Amino acid sequence: MRKTLFSVLLAVMSVSGTCLAQSGQASNSFAVKTAHPSPYNLNGSQFPRIEADASVTFQFKAPDAQKVQVAINNVPFDMIKGADGVWTYTSAPQDLGYRNYWMIVDGAMVLDPNTNAFIGYSHMCNGYEIPDPDGGFYELKDVPHGNVLIKNYYSKTTKGWRHVFIYTPPDYEKNTSARYPVLYLQHGGGEDERVWIEMGRTNLILDNLIAEGKAKPFIVVMETSAALKPGEVVAAPQPRPAQPVGTAQPAAPAGQAATAPRPRFNFDTYEELMITDLIPWIDSNYRTLASQPNRAMAGLSMGSAVTRQVALKHLDKFSSVGILSGGSVAPADITDKSKVKLVFMSFGSRENGSANLKAAADVLNQAGIKSVSYVSPLTAHEWQSWRRSLREFAMLLFKN
Amino acid sequence: MRKTLFSVLLAVMSVSGTCLAQSGQASNSFAVKTAHPSPYNLNGSQFPRIEADASVTFQFKAPDAQKVQVAINNVPFDMIKGADGVWTYTSAPQDLGYRNYWMIVDGAMVLDPNTNAFIGYSHMCNGYEIPDPDGGFYELKDVPHGNVLIKNYYSKTTKGWRHVFIYTPPDYEKNTSARYPVLYLQHGGGEDERVWIEMGRTNLILDNLIAEGKAKPFIVVMETSAALKPGEVVAAPQPRPAQPVGTAQPAAPAGQAATAPRPRFNFDTYEELMITDLIPWIDSNYRTLASQPNRAMAGLSMGSAVTRQVALKHLDKFSSVGILSGGSVAPADITDKSKVKLVFMSFGSRENGSANLKAAADVLNQAGIKSVSYVSPLTAHEWQSWRRSLREFAMLLFKN
Repeated sequence: MRKTLFSVLLAVMSVSGTCLAQSGQASNSFAVKTAHPSPYNLNGSQFPRIEADASVTFQFKAPDAQKVQVAINNVPFDMIKGADGVWTYTSAPQDLGYRNYWMIVDGAMVLDPNTNAFIGYSHMCNGYEIPDPDGGFYELKDVPHGNVLIKNYYSKTTKGWRHVFIYTPPDYEKNTSARYPVLYLQHGGGEDERVWIEMGRTNLILDNLIAEGKAKPFIVVMETSAALKPGEVVAAPQPRPAQPVGTAQPAAPAGQAATAPRPRFNFDTYEELMITDLIPWIDSNYRTLASQPNRAMAGLSMGSAVTRQVALKHLDKFSSVGILSGGSVAPADITDKSKVKLVFMSFGSRENGSANLKAAADVLNQAGIKSVSYVSPLTAHEWQSWRRSLREFAMLLFKN
Repeated sequence: MRKTLFSVLLAVMSVSGTCLAQSGQASNSFAVKTAHPSPYNLNGSQFPRIEADASVTFQFKAPDAQKVQVAINNVPFDMIKGADGVWTYTSAPQDLGYRNYWMIVDGAMVLDPNTNAFIGYSHMCNGYEIPDPDGGFYELKDVPHGNVLIKNYYSKTTKGWRHVFIYTPPDYEKNTSARYPVLYLQHGGGEDERVWIEMGRTNLILDNLIAEGKAKPFIVVMETSAALKPGEVVAAPQPRPAQPVGTAQPAAPAGQAATAPRPRFNFDTYEELMITDLIPWIDSNYRTLASQPNRAMAGLSMGSAVTRQVALKHLDKFSSVGILSGGSVAPADITDKSKVKLVFMSFGSRENGSANLKAAADVLNQAGIKSVSYVSPLTAHEWQSWRRSLREFAMLLFKN
């Protein structure tokens, strides 16, 4: 029943066809229309429930607890205890798309077992999903589907096995002589190789774009930048800063350069691993176009710092880069502009730096480096910004 | 460091090469040798910690809680609060292999966010893993690896999308003209299509057997038997009964027939879906040997009831069946014995019915139906029984 309801809802939204998010209208004026359980709930659980006004109602049974909070993207909100020992909270209307949350029960940070768990903030989180009227681009449709492969390979750099997700486009298995370009796609801080499939919906976004003829078919490789040599120790990644949901961050003052987040961690081992282990393994085991013009790299947030370190430093291997919620690139960051086909930069409109992003792209273009900027309307440092950014980036990749 | 330590540990165990579990010695006399964090922990978390004697120490921070318990396979144990607000419990020595657990904080059933989450008992659980000195058969090794594919397909029966995991053997991609037999492999009650990969390690078990020449290469299809037509409503599956860990269940009295669990649910929709949607979709999209002699079905616990309903009822489509922790098959259950190549039945030695399983296989064999029974030493209704059973079953499949 739950899945059926959700399918009907998606069908209804698809027919209504409004594109508020894309046209830049206030997302919070969008009505979900029909309250429904979050699609990630298990076992018939009705909560979290997505309300008709895009607010979310949480319920949690903790009869003997003194205090229960729900933390949405790391911001705690007090829940109210009912006579039946069930605690309730209804949020303000939310931004569209996926959001992490968890519970705090008498000081203990915990998860609700009755809805699925996802990696984020360096630990498992619960998650919910607000439908986007323009979200059809990441929904499962009756189009040819590529494969998502779960693979392991051995890294000589870390002297250990690595877990990797690989997307191959729909025609990969049938067209057994064709070779494809490759995008290396990096997660953010406190995440891992799962997120670009589980929350990012990379496979569905590319399946849909390819079916519409809007993207060239390419392979996507999703690995984790967490990589240590034997005996190597680094500081644990810090979670992303708290970000109140639905609240606009102050934009950078006009004329002030957007500040690129500096790499907080040491990605040297992952850089070495990518160059000496991962890329050669991918090129020997998959039908890739194994050349610089056909290789791109992108990442979100911390993953954009990884992308800077690896791709901008190895322009003999990469021709296109995507910096998603990771600041802007300056001409001085590019050592050999003749090698660069595309610098794509994006932000959610609620993020610092979004206001100045187009100016930064203009500077690159004036310096002879092709650059495209994209600002996701009315979203913050969150998955809806990155799903939309991936769509925009994918439509530009490997086309020249 | 954590992964490295674990790898070293596995290497040490592999070299020591004792096979206590297989030879039937008491598993609890096996020393893990080196205490280590459970391999599923995140973010540098040290707990659960697997102790040298195969007991497990849990820690959980809940400074303001009045009572905290850890529930191991649905059996709660009281934790002790320390001055720092951290609660601790060390279990008795555990059976080998994977085990589900969760926390109960002031009456609220919750998960620890600092270790991975897995489906079980109809909700998400935390999990830990006790190394098995004979566990090399499900470990990642330097052998050719097959693919695990995450796929979606549309079911006309349920009028909705289905999520399926598919294992293709190591030579599937290179040997592009070869066709392969198929095993349909079902999860247990309160689980879903993820478990035979995540806890069952089906891909690693088959990679290793194929590399040793002990199993014929075949495809494995892992779907969920949860299937409803539009408007159809069934009772929610009930969780598996609580099973104290490391405690032998009383065996059925000698001479008393092992009792097969009766199907508690209605699998009619899944039966229709498999026959009309899933099998034809698999046979059109993968290089299968699409014939009765080359098609098998097996399941664990509730999944064995699904296997009875689908495979034993459609012997025109299936030639081999595996009943894992799901009772025994009698000659009267087989409508046409000329169609059956193999009936495999297994139990953990601590399960009811294990003592009489060989006798049940003898009865089948005497009736002219080839049957093999297997009892996993010193395990209960749990993953180590099913990993070992899959190994035994796989070595017999599609060989005649």
